[in-house]
Amino acid sequence: MLSKRYADMLSEKDIIFEIAGMAKRRAREIGEEHVYNFSLGNPSVPAPEAVNQTIHTILNDTPTLQIHSYGPSAGLPQVREQLARSLNRRFGMDYQPEHLFMASGAAGALGHALRAVTEPGDEIIVFAPYFPEYRPYTQGAGLRLSVVPADVDSFQINFRALEERLNPAVTALLINSPNNPSGIVLSSATLTQLAALLEEKQRQFGHPIYLISDEPYRELLFTGTEETYPARFYHNTITCYSFSKSLSLPGERIGYLAVNPKAEQAMTIAEVCPQISRTIGCNGTSTLMQLTVGRCADLTSQLEIYERNKDRLFSALTEYGFSCVEPGGSFYMFPRSLEPDDVAFCKKATELDLFLVPGTAFGCPGHFRLAYCVPEERVVAALPRFKQLAERYQRQKD
Amino acid sequence: MLSKRYADMLSEKDIIFEIAGMAKRRAREIGEEHVYNFSLGNPSVPAPEAVNQTIHTILNDTPTLQIHSYGPSAGLPQVREQLARSLNRRFGMDYQPEHLFMASGAAGALGHALRAVTEPGDEIIVFAPYFPEYRPYTQGAGLRLSVVPADVDSFQINFRALEERLNPAVTALLINSPNNPSGIVLSSATLTQLAALLEEKQRQFGHPIYLISDEPYRELLFTGTEETYPARFYHNTITCYSFSKSLSLPGERIGYLAVNPKAEQAMTIAEVCPQISRTIGCNGTSTLMQLTVGRCADLTSQLEIYERNKDRLFSALTEYGFSCVEPGGSFYMFPRSLEPDDVAFCKKATELDLFLVPGTAFGCPGHFRLAYCVPEERVVAALPRFKQLAERYQRQKD
Repeated sequence: MLSKRYADMLSEKDIIFEIAGMAKRRAREIGEEHVYNFSLGNPSVPAPEAVNQTIHTILNDTPTLQIHSYGPSAGLPQVREQLARSLNRRFGMDYQPEHLFMASGAAGALGHALRAVTEPGDEIIVFAPYFPEYRPYTQGAGLRLSVVPADVDSFQINFRALEERLNPAVTALLINSPNNPSGIVLSSATLTQLAALLEEKQRQFGHPIYLISDEPYRELLFTGTEETYPARFYHNTITCYSFSKSLSLPGERIGYLAVNPKAEQAMTIAEVCPQISRTIGCNGTSTLMQLTVGRCADLTSQLEIYERNKDRLFSALTEYGFSCVEPGGSFYMFPRSLEPDDVAFCKKATELDLFLVPGTAFGCPGHFRLAYCVPEERVVAALPRFKQLAERYQRQKD
Repeated sequence: MLSKRYADMLSEKDIIFEIAGMAKRRAREIGEEHVYNFSLGNPSVPAPEAVNQTIHTILNDTPTLQIHSYGPSAGLPQVREQLARSLNRRFGMDYQPEHLFMASGAAGALGHALRAVTEPGDEIIVFAPYFPEYRPYTQGAGLRLSVVPADVDSFQINFRALEERLNPAVTALLINSPNNPSGIVLSSATLTQLAALLEEKQRQFGHPIYLISDEPYRELLFTGTEETYPARFYHNTITCYSFSKSLSLPGERIGYLAVNPKAEQAMTIAEVCPQISRTIGCNGTSTLMQLTVGRCADLTSQLEIYERNKDRLFSALTEYGFSCVEPGGSFYMFPRSLEPDDVAFCKKATELDLFLVPGTAFGCPGHFRLAYCVPEERVVAALPRFKQLAERYQRQKD
């Protein structure tokens, strides 16, 4: 019989998707060029030329049977070695290929990490504002989601609220830096404090607490932002990565999970991942794409455009009277809405054909997400609309 | 904390994998050419030239951003249309693109199908001999596995045993034709009888019973075998397919699920699949591979070698005194072991460097699986060993 659980999900509204749909319909009405769509986190720059070139090369220089044949469920050993080497060099880690598990994007990596270090019924802590898909991801693993409210002045961690929520039922925390939707990068001060707190709570509770670090925006780091690698701060860290953003390959569903070699039972955590795959039916990821990202591990798309878009938007919006914590990376920013009701605010924005996502979707009302993974000229064209929007609110106040 | 459930799976022995490992170690000792490894179902013929050519073409003729960007979770519409059209033409079906869901191989398709039409705690019926991974697949969906013993004289369905097992808790059946490990294709007589029985039981129980048809070997059909498409016989059928075998792309993890348009709530079943993806972290499959199989939907690898291997092995083994139901497709056969204890038999075979998998692994003792997806010359070279093995048993009897 049709599953009630999944059928019920059909009626849950996905706000982001709805707004993107509205923008699309509006574009059909008045033309693409008159619509300012900042609703979706879809990379706007193509994969670097080298990616397609690498695919051509692999097809030409490797026996066909070898390219497309079954690989180990954990991923091709040579690819895991290439990626481990890159991480070790960049972040001073000590990964062996066996600590890595190739996954179907960050979603796949998270799906495995969540199941590997928790039992159904455990609590998992996430920090507002958070990516809305964390809800189905964690519910799918049978976990109870405990949300730490945002520190809206910095979007670093609200430690007082976190401490209140830490209890023996918590076996994992999920962080996301650079953050979707705020673009904030957790500072080394924050990560140091977080590590100290978790070490203390582990001792107190008598069991490990794993930090699951969702890092698809890791390479989208802006000038002057400190590069912080959470696993460097806390042993029990599982890093989840995707090449969706860094190489603009979101459709290829390719990423990995890396267990910190210093984590408790590190090797066993990596080893259970293929077992998890067997139970969810997600056995491995395209061998051709594995071979490709292995060879392109140290490349990125032309990510500079995201920083230019951020600079332009941040200075303009601030000038127009918006209040916003400046992003350190990603292609998002998360200003305060100009009225407390962020849903009403985003609705009002659509009157100017500006499509934004209310903070409520990310568990953080009173804000809105602006996804600036769009061509630069769209940002330039949109600025007068943001100005008009601010003026409308100003007039109301006056 | 490390998940007990998945950690426990690490200690379960995977017999097929163990035997394949033994064969590999033995090959290192005495050389590949002296080892007769029939343990693994890994295609031995490469993907057709056209597959790699198609990938080159897609990379050259499609904007990069378009190839690799996010697609709908259900899969790219044009690809689902290409596949639906191919199925409609070949099997007289009436699929719309919306009835198809692109999945990470047959495992991914099954993972979604199982969850879409059952509730945790339901019973699912499988038929011995069955692919051992059905156990983790069904357990992962929270289902209780009910195994119908084999009709070892035909490997069609043992209907008496099936009827005994049908009860209101059964919401789905899982069939696999051509079958792994027997190579048997369910006849139209069998499927007609199965459909009639399920129609009757649906009425009696007052709820739908879905037939999940696992068909990765569909295109590996031997001369003279009737091509039967289960969805043609029974409305409530969900077809799960993979290009692993037909196009020799097992590493690319690409397949689909197709809901019979005549199934109860057909469209909703297809619609819940992307919801299921959200909870298991398996969101979609490589867009480049989707585009590729869409364009190559009607091609296959050079599958004739499997039939030649079957012919050669079947006639030789029968001559040596083995008893075997002749396969109608796939690249497997499932003869009776020459002693009742199939594990002891397969152990004895290893003394002759013949690596076979005991039927016990497939829920059907007293048999062994022979995977003949190997180069023809390996089959020719192995025949004297099978003869020697038979003679050893003959001498014991004399």
